[in-house]
Parts: sequence; structure tokens; C-alpha cells
Amino acid sequence: MRIGVYPGTFDPITLGHMDIIQRGAQLVDHLIVGVTTNIAKSPMFSDEERMEMVRREVAQIPGANISVVGFSSLLMDFAEAQGASVVIRGIRGVTDFEYEYQLTGMNRQLNDRIETVFLMADVALQPIASRLVKEIALYGGAIHRFVTDAVRIDVEKRVRETGLKG
Amino acid sequence: MRIGVYPGTFDPITLGHMDIIQRGAQLVDHLIVGVTTNIAKSPMFSDEERMEMVRREVAQIPGANISVVGFSSLLMDFAEAQGASVVIRGIRGVTDFEYEYQLTGMNRQLNDRIETVFLMADVALQPIASRLVKEIALYGGAIHRFVTDAVRIDVEKRVRETGLKG
Amino acid sequence: MRIGVYPGTFDPITLGHMDIIQRGAQLVDHLIVGVTTNIAKSPMFSDEERMEMVRREVAQIPGANISVVGFSSLLMDFAEAQGASVVIRGIRGVTDFEYEYQLTGMNRQLNDRIETVFLMADVALQPIASRLVKEIALYGGAIHRFVTDAVRIDVEKRVRETGLKG
Amino acid sequence: MRIGVYPGTFDPITLGHMDIIQRGAQLVDHLIVGVTTNIAKSPMFSDEERMEMVRREVAQIPGANISVVGFSSLLMDFAEAQGASVVIRGIRGVTDFEYEYQLTGMNRQLNDRIETVFLMADVALQPIASRLVKEIALYGGAIHRFVTDAVRIDVEKRVRETGLKG
Amino acid sequence: MRIGVYPGTFDPITLGHMDIIQRGAQLVDHLIVGVTTNIAKSPMFSDEERMEMVRREVAQIPGANISVVGFSSLLMDFAEAQGASVVIRGIRGVTDFEYEYQLTGMNRQLNDRIETVFLMADVALQPIASRLVKEIALYGGAIHRFVTDAVRIDVEKRVRETGLKG
Amino acid sequence: MRIGVYPGTFDPITLGHMDIIQRGAQLVDHLIVGVTTNIAKSPMFSDEERMEMVRREVAQIPGANISVVGFSSLLMDFAEAQGASVVIRGIRGVTDFEYEYQLTGMNRQLNDRIETVFLMADVALQPIASRLVKEIALYGGAIHRFVTDAVRIDVEKRVRETGLKG
Repeated sequence: MRIGVYPGTFDPITLGHMDIIQRGAQLVDHLIVGVTTNIAKSPMFSDEERMEMVRREVAQIPGANISVVGFSSLLMDFAEAQGASVVIRGIRGVTDFEYEYQLTGMNRQLNDRIETVFLMADVALQPIASRLVKEIALYGGAIHRFVTDAVRIDVEKRVRETGLKG
Repeated sequence: MRIGVYPGTFDPITLGHMDIIQRGAQLVDHLIVGVTTNIAKSPMFSDEERMEMVRREVAQIPGANISVVGFSSLLMDFAEAQGASVVIRGIRGVTDFEYEYQLTGMNRQLNDRIETVFLMADVALQPIASRLVKEIALYGGAIHRFVTDAVRIDVEKRVRETGLKG
Repeated sequence: MRIGVYPGTFDPITLGHMDIIQRGAQLVDHLIVGVTTNIAKSPMFSDEERMEMVRREVAQIPGANISVVGFSSLLMDFAEAQGASVVIRGIRGVTDFEYEYQLTGMNRQLNDRIETVFLMADVALQPIASRLVKEIALYGGAIHRFVTDAVRIDVEKRVRETGLKG
Repeated sequence: MRIGVYPGTFDPITLGHMDIIQRGAQLVDHLIVGVTTNIAKSPMFSDEERMEMVRREVAQIPGANISVVGFSSLLMDFAEAQGASVVIRGIRGVTDFEYEYQLTGMNRQLNDRIETVFLMADVALQPIASRLVKEIALYGGAIHRFVTDAVRIDVEKRVRETGLKG
Repeated sequence: MRIGVYPGTFDPITLGHMDIIQRGAQLVDHLIVGVTTNIAKSPMFSDEERMEMVRREVAQIPGANISVVGFSSLLMDFAEAQGASVVIRGIRGVTDFEYEYQLTGMNRQLNDRIETVFLMADVALQPIASRLVKEIALYGGAIHRFVTDAVRIDVEKRVRETGLKG
Repeated sequence: MRIGVYPGTFDPITLGHMDIIQRGAQLVDHLIVGVTTNIAKSPMFSDEERMEMVRREVAQIPGANISVVGFSSLLMDFAEAQGASVVIRGIRGVTDFEYEYQLTGMNRQLNDRIETVFLMADVALQPIASRLVKEIALYGGAIHRFVTDAVRIDVEKRVRETGLKG
């Protein structure tokens, strides 16, 4: 059985992430969406909230070969522990690509049994970045084209609770 | 009447910014230089100081079709409120371009009645970045080739007041 | 009156070109689509055919501020002769950008009264390149998502007449 | 069964290609190396020679899940006809990436049931390009670090037969 | 006598840095490795520790034309004070390049008697970044392929002392 | 003695080339400008004309450490035969850089005793490309900002002799 890992912070999960998850799930027999936890930068949503949010959204994707697992270790150690042979990365453009490329070069030195594959997001979804989605929401902008309706509600609720970032 | 917005932090305004403002003012009937206020990262100059500095410098540009307005909302909301049909961005190179490109993709989803146009800075002014100008000044370097004389005096005064950034 | 020039070979005109023409027409009072003629590389469609094709397609765009003119001189000389103050370029990605950037640098040395502005094509239309459209058609692929129906008929007719490029 | 296609001209096949073939063969149950035939630019090796060369080299790779097939149709039509769900591309750097990215965008419009995945070549093999290998050989340079020994002999023999490209 | 400066933070010094130092030392009669001190971001190793570490590692390089000097002034002022006519930069890829390019443009305005030259790191060492080395070590990953054995021991000791970055 | 080689086609030599030659001559004790001869693409100027033109222009540069030599072998073989330890490349932007980067990677495999160094052209001269200079001249444009006066006369004479490229 071929197992893949798609890692991310998903703060929040966007339609761009959803697109890559669906594409990635076609490539392997089982796809593990790895949610990074204990991250240094304070996220909008807690570890538990992000795990729960990703699980809820992924449950909407047809097919039953996707699971969601949190991790705070090195990606290659997490992938190895999950029995994965593939790590999946979504690419939105050249800047993304350069960064992923360097990371992949070092990850191969750490574990060359796990292959990193790059998938291109749907062109219409490529400009979507979690960071910009949050910024737009904080300024009261409409984010319904970037995230699902449930995620939109989560983000707007959080913005009301915490107000504009100083 | 065609109105354009050229947004920026202008901390401080450089000769590169001045070049784009002059070029942009040729493209539209009225150009609004939008100064972002209430910004998260602590700037060298306060909201009022930056607004004042930009107003003073822009007054040196021949022609009377430029005004300076502060804003702390989403760019597209600001542009809409100002009656603008065009947002102007200055591009200094490929890295700039990639970032602006992603931003433009999302901004179009927010408001597709306002067009973003990219202008190329004068090649001799392309390497100038506000961040580097401040860094050079903090270390006692000469910045007179990157900013006007009045801005140079402002920056050097501020550096004397605050000393080397810890 | 602000006049703009949007130059190209349009062999054939794609939906990506149409998108930039519509966006460009909003930026100026009159937009001249400049069709390059007497080009070195042998095009699929002759000078007259391309001029005619662009005229027919542009006639579908609402608003009456667009005209189509052929030219075989230097772009900046053509723009100057047409009374233009703006040259419009569509950008599909970083590679496009680099090339246009270098060209713009040299064009400014030739004529600094005419400003070059870069517009971003609609993200869904960005991958469309005339060269690839022709290649797909030559191999019998479907091109209806890349060009209008009338252009598709033109291209398919031409492919039947000339057969597969050796 | 998951079938993948890795297309190329392989004029000649390099160690960089071999690396991607080995990596790609891990990702799918069966990998088809698609050799483009009837190409416009005159290759150093004929269709038959390239097919034979790729077959011979691929036979050295452990595992029995790789076959070699020539094709002169559109890549997506070839992949569909072979029952493939994945197209594999090797990426050596940013320039490669941009081109592949645009191609992938158009290919998706032609057939969205087949996913394109990008693999990174081994960093030590990334600079290798078939075009440069041929150029080096034509000038009498040593190519043994870029191709297998058998391919080196093929290329050197061909250079002796045809002499320096005018 | 031609003197060169190779500046960096070296937190820690990697095999990639060592490669550039060896290459740079061939280009000039004397190479000064400039270690930036009093840096804003808190490094893993103190000014003294980094100076000492670089001195120890550089002592392993054959030839006696390399010295190590700390500096907290502007690079161009440091290079001038050291009598250098050349500043050496190592480039790992396009993203590195863009940043260095802009910096070089401004540095030339500050001092055009000192030339900046870019060297390409060994391809096998290009993905190595100090930041990623530290991150891998913090998560218990193996870093022996990225740094010398002595530096590996230093980094692992420091990680044990300070624990995982919150 | 440190010898450097700066290779190029110089068809024609531009102010950008002149700038790199002057910078390169500071880096080494003797600089050899290597003019590629017997090139596949038909140049505007013959081998002898280009050698003569480069010699004439280089004679204007103060200092006596520059010579001009033609070559039609592999660059690394030429550099080795000239006793050079350094190859100098001028970089005008990211696209240039990518190409040079790949070439450098392969050249190192051919001869790792010779180091390739990249120099940045003066920002004001970066957009200048020989290809565009010729194209502008062919269409009757002014090229005096891109080449010396003597080269301008050579190019304009050649254009009159040969007419517009079909």
C-alpha cells in the first residue's frame, strides 16, 4: 500500500489546500493530512481547532482514503513513522517552488526513501494564501471565495472574538 | 475622471517611490498616494510623520493632480471609497513581482472593478528599498543617493534620536 | 485624450489576449491593438488574416474605444506615431515578466515619454500561449477553452489545409 | 493499477533522466517512458535509435515495472490511451519549472483526469541537459559524468560520424 | 595585494559556507571571513562562539591566506577598512540571487571601488541553510551531512542545553 | 599570476559588456576577452570583424592587462589552455542567472580547477542585450545609448549594407 503525507499548518484550511488534498488522494492509496502542532508563530486557531477544522472539511471529500494526524516532529520522521513513501507539496508559483526545492534537497539528505512530489494547485486557486485570507478577514473583507462556508464562519467568529491584530 | 491609488508605507519615501508617483500621475487624471497607517510592524516614522513627509515630497512634483491620504482598511475598500478605477504598483524585480502577483490575484476576487497596473521603476532606482535605507542610516552610512535631501535629514535626525536598533 | 497601444502577433488571438484588451481599454480613452506585420518567423496566419481576425474579435467587446492597426516598425516609433502615451503588456508569469522587463528598460532609453504598464491576465487564462494553442490544434487536440469559437474554426480550417507541421 | 507516463525526447538519455525514471517508478505500479517521435528539430539520434537507447538503459534499472513506448500525438492523448492517471516531470530549476507550469495549466484544460506531478532531480544531477551534453561532445569534451558508459560510446560514435555541427 | 571579504552570520558555519570560503580563497591573495556581530535576531551561538567556531573550522582549510574578523558596521565600511577590493557572496539559487542583487545595487552606490562577486556553491551543498540545520537539530534530526563533525557536536550540545524552541 | 577569461560572442560589443570587462580586469592580473568564433547562428559581424571590434573598444579601457583572443573550442578547454583560473560572467537578471547557473554546474564537472565568478552589470546598463541592439538598429532606431560611438557606426553601416532582416 502506497501512503502519502501532505503537511501544513492549515490556519485556516483554504480551497487551495482542499484542491491539493483531492489531487494528492488520487496519487496514493491512503493520504495522511499532517497538521503541524506546537508551532512557534501564534496561529489564529489552536492545534485542536486546526485538527478539528481539517477533519471536518476533509470529511466532505468523496472517497475514504484520507486521514488527519497532528505532528510536531521533523516532517521526514513523521512520514517515516506513518509508513509513507511520498510527501506531497502544493505549488502556487515560483517563490513557493524555490523554498520547497531547498527544503526537499535537505529532506532527501535526512531520508532518501521518501520521495517529495510537487502538485500544481488549480490556477484559479493559486493566489490563495492562508496569511492573506486572515488579513482580509481582520479588515472586514469577504473571504467566501477562498475558503468553504464553514471555515468562513470559523474565521469571522474568531475575528469578532479577538478584534483587529494590533 | 480616472482616479488611481498608489499605496505604500513610505517609511521613508525613497527616490524609487517618487519615480513611480511621477509615472503613475501621468496614467490617471488624479493620483491618490495612499499611506498605510496603524501598521503592525513599528515603523521608523509615525503615521502622522509619514503622511506629512509624503505630502511635503509630493508637493515638489510638477502638476497638481496628486493628493495624499492615509488608510488602515483593505486596499480594495480604500480604492473603492476613493472612487479609484486603478491601483498602481511599482516593481523592482522578480521577487517584488511574485508577491504583487499573488496579492493582485486575491484582490481581484475581492473587487474586480478596480484594475491593478504594474509600473517598472527607473533602472537606476530599482535597488532602493526603504528597509535597506534605514539599515544603512542606522550604521552611519550615506543615504543621499536613495532619498531626497529633506528625507535624508529626517532619517538622520531620527537615527540620532533613537540610536542603533538593538 | 489618453491613447494606449497593446502590441502583439496574435497568431492566433487567444482568450488571454481578449482579457488584456478588455482590461487595457478601461485604462485609456482609446486603445490601439497593434498587430505586428512582416514578422521573421512564418506565422500560421498572414498579416491580413491576423489583422482581420483581431478586428472581428475586438468588435465583440462592448464599448467603442478600440481600434486595430498593423505595424512593422519599432514599437516605440509606432506608439509615438499613434499619439500614444501608454504601452500595455499582459503578463502571465515570471518568465514573461523578465523578458518584458528587459525590453521595457531598452524601450525607455528609446523614448521616455511613453510609459509601459503591465497588466495581469485573469488567473484562469494565464497558461494560454498562442504557440501551445497551435501545437495542440496541429495534433488534433481541442482548443475551445483557449480561443473564441470563431478563432477555433479558423485554426482548425488552417490545420486541415496545411497538415501536421513536419 | 496506477500507471504513470514520463515523456521526453531523450536525445540522448542522461543520468538526470535515469534518476527521474527510478524515482517515478516508485510512485506508480507501472511507469511508461514515452519517447517523442517525429520531432520537428532534427535530433542527434533517430526515433528508432532513441527508443532502443532508452530501452537498453532502462533495462539496467532494478524492478520490472517500466516499459518504453514511442509517441507522436499530444501528451495527454498518449497518456489517456496508455491508461495512465499520472504524468511525471523532472524539474532541474526555476526556468524548467515555469515552462512546465504553463504547459501543465493547458494540459489540465485538455484532460483533467490525469494529474501532473513534478519530481526534483538529484541535486548533483540537476545541471545536466541533453543539449549541453551534445554540445560538449561535439567539441571533444568528456561526457562520462553526465551519461552512462554505453550512452557515452553512442554519442562519441555519432560525433565521429557526423563531425562538428556547422 | 588583492584582499577579499566573505561576510556572514555563520550560526552555525555549514559545509556550504566552507565550500565558498575555499573557492573564495583561490580568487584573492588574502580572504577575510567577516563574522557579523551584535545582530538583532538572537543567534544560537554568541558573537564569541561564532568567531571561535569559524576560526577553528577555517584552520582546517589548506593554505594560509584566510583570517577571521568580526564586524558590526556596514559591510562596505568594513571591507574598506580591511583594504578589500572584493566582496564574495555565495549563491544557492534564484531566491538568494535576487536578494543579493538588490543589496549589491545599493552597496555600489555606497562604495563603487569594491566589487561584489557571486560564487556558486557546489551543487551537492546548495540546499544547505543554517536556519534549516538548526531546525533539524532542534527536532532531533541528524545534521552530519550539512556541517563538520566538530560543528555538529557544538550544535547538538547547544540544543541539549536550551531544549526545543517554544 | 591570476588570469581570467571573459567569454562572449560580442555581436556587437555593448556598453554592458564594456562595464563587465572593466570590472573583471580589476579582479585578475590579466583578463582575456574570449571571442567565440565559428558560431552556428549567423552573426551580424564575422569572426574577424568581431575580434577587431572588441580589440578596438578594449584598447580604450585604461590599464594594460586586457587581451582579446578568439576561440571555437569548449570554454573550459580554452580557459585551461590560456592558463586561466577564473571565468567571468556578467549577469543582467534572473533569467541570465538561471542559464549561467546550469552551465556553470556542467563546466565544473568538466574542469573543477577553474572557478566561475558572476559579476553584476551596472544597473543602468542591465537591460542592454546585443540581440535587441541589432533589432533596434534594423528598424532604424537610435542605439547610441547602448554601444560606443564607433560600434554604433559599425552597426548602422552593416544595416545599410544588408537591409532589414527578412
